[in-house]
Amino acid sequence: MFKESATLDFHYNKIDEAALAFFRSIVGDEFVLITGEHYEKYAKDETENLRFYPEAVAKPNTTAQVSALVRYCNEHKIPVYPRAAGTGLSANSLAIYGGLMITIERLNKIIEIDENNLQVTTEPGVITELLQNTVKEKGLFYPPDPSSRGTSFIGGNISCNSGGPRAVKYGVVKDYVLNLEVVLPNGEVMWTGANVLKNSTGYNFTHLFVGSEGTLGIVTKIVLKLIPHPKFNVIMLVPFTSMDQASAAVSAIFRAGITPSCLEFMERDAIDWVCNWLGDVTIPIADDVRANLLIELDGNDMDYIQKEAEYLYEVLTQFDCGEILFADSDAQKNDLWRMRRNVANAVKTTSVTIEEDTVVPRFYLPELLRHIKEVGKKYNFRSVCYGHAGDGNVHVRIIKDELSDDYWKNEVPKGVREIFEKVVALGGTISGEHGIGWVQRRFMDIKFPEFQMELMRGVKKVFDPNNIMNPGKVF
Amino acid sequence: MFKESATLDFHYNKIDEAALAFFRSIVGDEFVLITGEHYEKYAKDETENLRFYPEAVAKPNTTAQVSALVRYCNEHKIPVYPRAAGTGLSANSLAIYGGLMITIERLNKIIEIDENNLQVTTEPGVITELLQNTVKEKGLFYPPDPSSRGTSFIGGNISCNSGGPRAVKYGVVKDYVLNLEVVLPNGEVMWTGANVLKNSTGYNFTHLFVGSEGTLGIVTKIVLKLIPHPKFNVIMLVPFTSMDQASAAVSAIFRAGITPSCLEFMERDAIDWVCNWLGDVTIPIADDVRANLLIELDGNDMDYIQKEAEYLYEVLTQFDCGEILFADSDAQKNDLWRMRRNVANAVKTTSVTIEEDTVVPRFYLPELLRHIKEVGKKYNFRSVCYGHAGDGNVHVRIIKDELSDDYWKNEVPKGVREIFEKVVALGGTISGEHGIGWVQRRFMDIKFPEFQMELMRGVKKVFDPNNIMNPGKVF
Repeated sequence: MFKESATLDFHYNKIDEAALAFFRSIVGDEFVLITGEHYEKYAKDETENLRFYPEAVAKPNTTAQVSALVRYCNEHKIPVYPRAAGTGLSANSLAIYGGLMITIERLNKIIEIDENNLQVTTEPGVITELLQNTVKEKGLFYPPDPSSRGTSFIGGNISCNSGGPRAVKYGVVKDYVLNLEVVLPNGEVMWTGANVLKNSTGYNFTHLFVGSEGTLGIVTKIVLKLIPHPKFNVIMLVPFTSMDQASAAVSAIFRAGITPSCLEFMERDAIDWVCNWLGDVTIPIADDVRANLLIELDGNDMDYIQKEAEYLYEVLTQFDCGEILFADSDAQKNDLWRMRRNVANAVKTTSVTIEEDTVVPRFYLPELLRHIKEVGKKYNFRSVCYGHAGDGNVHVRIIKDELSDDYWKNEVPKGVREIFEKVVALGGTISGEHGIGWVQRRFMDIKFPEFQMELMRGVKKVFDPNNIMNPGKVF
Repeated sequence: MFKESATLDFHYNKIDEAALAFFRSIVGDEFVLITGEHYEKYAKDETENLRFYPEAVAKPNTTAQVSALVRYCNEHKIPVYPRAAGTGLSANSLAIYGGLMITIERLNKIIEIDENNLQVTTEPGVITELLQNTVKEKGLFYPPDPSSRGTSFIGGNISCNSGGPRAVKYGVVKDYVLNLEVVLPNGEVMWTGANVLKNSTGYNFTHLFVGSEGTLGIVTKIVLKLIPHPKFNVIMLVPFTSMDQASAAVSAIFRAGITPSCLEFMERDAIDWVCNWLGDVTIPIADDVRANLLIELDGNDMDYIQKEAEYLYEVLTQFDCGEILFADSDAQKNDLWRMRRNVANAVKTTSVTIEEDTVVPRFYLPELLRHIKEVGKKYNFRSVCYGHAGDGNVHVRIIKDELSDDYWKNEVPKGVREIFEKVVALGGTISGEHGIGWVQRRFMDIKFPEFQMELMRGVKKVFDPNNIMNPGKVF
C-alpha cells in the first residue's frame, strides 16, 4: 500500500518577509497574493472538495521572472507549485506543502502562428479553446480538446498529457508538442527539443516533460504542430439497449477500418443528468436505452464522409442499436457536444464526487464496464460512466450521495483499487489523461513495481535535487 | 568542442574465461562467438568504414537470457553493446570499448497480432518489412518504413526513433510504440507503459527509451499500435529545374491542406546515380532537371484520391516543374520506390561516404540546401542530398572521392559543423532519424548547452549507474 517515499522526503522552509519582498521585487507588488478574495481560488482545483493553501501566489509574466522566482525558492528550499487554470481532477496543482504557487495565467500570449511550417509558438497560459479558435482562423487545427478546453490552459494540458474526444483520430497532446521552453528547478532555462517533426538527438526530454505534472520544471513556451483543419463533419448519437452492446460496437467500428474523429460513450444516466442540468437541451431517448455512442466523422470531402457514414451504419446495425439521431444543423451539433462536455459538471452538482480515469485496450471496454458496476454494488456506491470509448478511456464518476465521510475516505478507495486492479490486468493503466497528481498516488503500486517507481524518483532527482517542484505529486 | 564526459568515465573489465563460460552456460556454446567468419560482421555497421571488435558476441533468445547476461556484465563492469541488424548510420551499435555484444537477432518472433485492439506484440529482432507484411495480411498497417526496412529490425528502429518516407503523414516510430519490455542494466525487467492509446501515469519511460539508442537498457518486447491499411495510392515523380523550386513546392503543398503519404526529395545526381547502379530502372529525365519530388497520396477512396491529386497538380504548376510522371502500374510504383530507397546504396559504392541527417522546419529547406552546397564548395567536398522533404528531413551524403584521409578526418567535419550550426539556427536539429551514436557526439554541443547534456547524463546514470550499456554513444 501507499506510503510517502523516503527518498523524496525533504525539509522545507516557510516563506518569510524577505522571501515575499523578493517575490514582489520580481513580479511587482500587485502580482503577489497572500490573502484575500482573489487568493482563495488558488487553494482548490476541480478535484473533490479539497483545500490546500499556498503561502503565497506569484503571477510572473516572463520566463525571466519565472526563473528568478524558482531559483530563489530552490536556494531557500521553498516548495513551488506551478498552476495553470486549476481544472485538474487529481489535485495536480494543489499546494500540499504550502510554499509558493506560481501561476502561469499572465503568460498568455500566442507568440507566433507559423503558417509556412504549420506550427504555433505560444505561452502556456493561453486557454486551449482560444488557441484552437485562433489557429482555425488560419485554416489550421490543433486537435486535442479536453472537456475543460473552454477554461483550461494549454500549459496545464501539457502537464497532464491531456486527451479529449478527438484523440481517437488525432492523438493526444504529446502528439502535437514539438518543443518546450522550460524553467528548471535551479532556474536554468532550456528548450527540450527542436521545432521539427522528427528528432533523434539525445534523450526525448520533450515527452518526458509532457505529462510530468509540473514535477520537473515549469513550461514557459510551447511549440505545437498544427494540421490543416478538416472542412466537414457529421455527428450522430447512437442509442443501445445495453452497455455491453454499445461498448462492443466500439471495437467493431475500428476493426471495420473506420476511424471516427470522435467516439464517445455515455451511460443513460449521464444523458438524463446532463439534460436535466443544462435545461435547454432535449434529446429524445427511448425508455429502454441504457447507453449511447456519440460519433463524429470528419474530413475534407463530404461525399467520402457520407460513404463512410453509410458503412458505419452497416456496422452499427450488427449491434442492438436504436434509431440514430443525426445532427442536422450546427446548433444541434453544438447541443450534442455541450451535452457530452457537461456530464461531469452535471453529476458533481448533486453530491461530492470523484472521477477515476480508467483506460484499457478498447476491446475490453465491456468487461471493464461490467466490473465497475459490480464493484459499485459491492461497495454500495453509484457511479456514472462516460468518456472516450474509442480510446478505451472511460471516466468513472463515483458519487458520494449519503455515504458517510468515513466510508467515503476509507472504504470507497478499496473499491477504486479493485477497479484499477482490473484495469491493469486488462493491459490498461490508472490514468489516461488526468494524471496522477496527489489523489491517485496511492494507486501507483498497482501499475508499477517499487523499483520502477524508484527509477521515476531518480529521474525527478536529476532535474530537481531539492524536491521543490510540485512536491507531493505523482510519487 | 567535444570531449569525452568525465562524469561518464568508467573503468571496465575484460571478458575472461569465467565470463565466457558464464555466457555459454546461459545461451549455449554455439551462441557465443569470439572469432571466425560469422563473428566478423559484428565489428561493423553501415557507417563509413569503421571497425570495432567486441570481445564476444552473445545471441540470447529469451528475455531471461538477456537479463542474466546483462546482470553478469553489470556486476563485472563489462560493457554491453546491444545490437539489432547493424544497419545504423551513426555507429550506434559498435563496440567502442570491446565488451559483450548482445545481438537480438534470435528474439525474432511476432508474438501476437491483436485484431480486436489493432495492436501487435513482437520481439525486437523481427525485420521491419516482415512485420509490416505480416500485419498487412490482416488488413493492418504499421507505417514507419526506414529505407533499411528490408534488413533492419524493429528493435533497432525503436532505438533510433526511425522515420522513413511515410512519417510525413503517419508519424515516426515513437508514434506507434505503446509499451516496451526492457531489460535494465542491473538485469531487472520492466514494462515501460501500458497497451493503451492514452497514458498519463507517471513519467513517460516508453518515449524515453524510444530513441535512446540502447544506452538505458535492452528492449525485449514491443507493443505497437496499428491502423487500418489504406486501400489505394497514387505515386508521381515531379521534376523541377532548380532545387529551390522543388523545396519551395514542398511547404506550399502542406499549406494548401494536402497531406501526402510521402513527399521525398532527390537531387538530380541522386537519380542518375541510383538508376546507373540499379541498372534495370530507367527514368526519363530532361537535361535541365535539377531536382525531383516523389509524391504519394493514399486513402480508402480512389475518387477522393483523384480529387486530391488534381488539387496537388494545381499547386505544383505554380512552381517551375516539368512533366509529371504518374506510376501507372504496381511495377512502376515499385521501381520508383526502389530508386528512392537505394540512393544511399548507390552513392556509397563509389567512394567512402558519410551521411548527415539534417532536419529543419520544412519551409526552410531551400535555405538549408543552398547552405549545404555553399559549405561543400568552401570545403571542397561533393554531396548528394535526398530524403524526406515533407518532414524537412534531408540526408546529406558527403563523398570522400580523392580527399586525403587527413582532410576527411580533420577538415570535412568542420564543414559538417557549419551545416549543423545552420540547421540549429533554423530551428532544426542534428539528427531526424539516424540517432547520434558514436560519430555525431562531437556535434551535440551545437544543439545542447552543457547543462542540458549533464541532465541527459544524469538520466543515463539513474538507469545505468555503472555505465555499461552501450558506452561511448550519444554523450
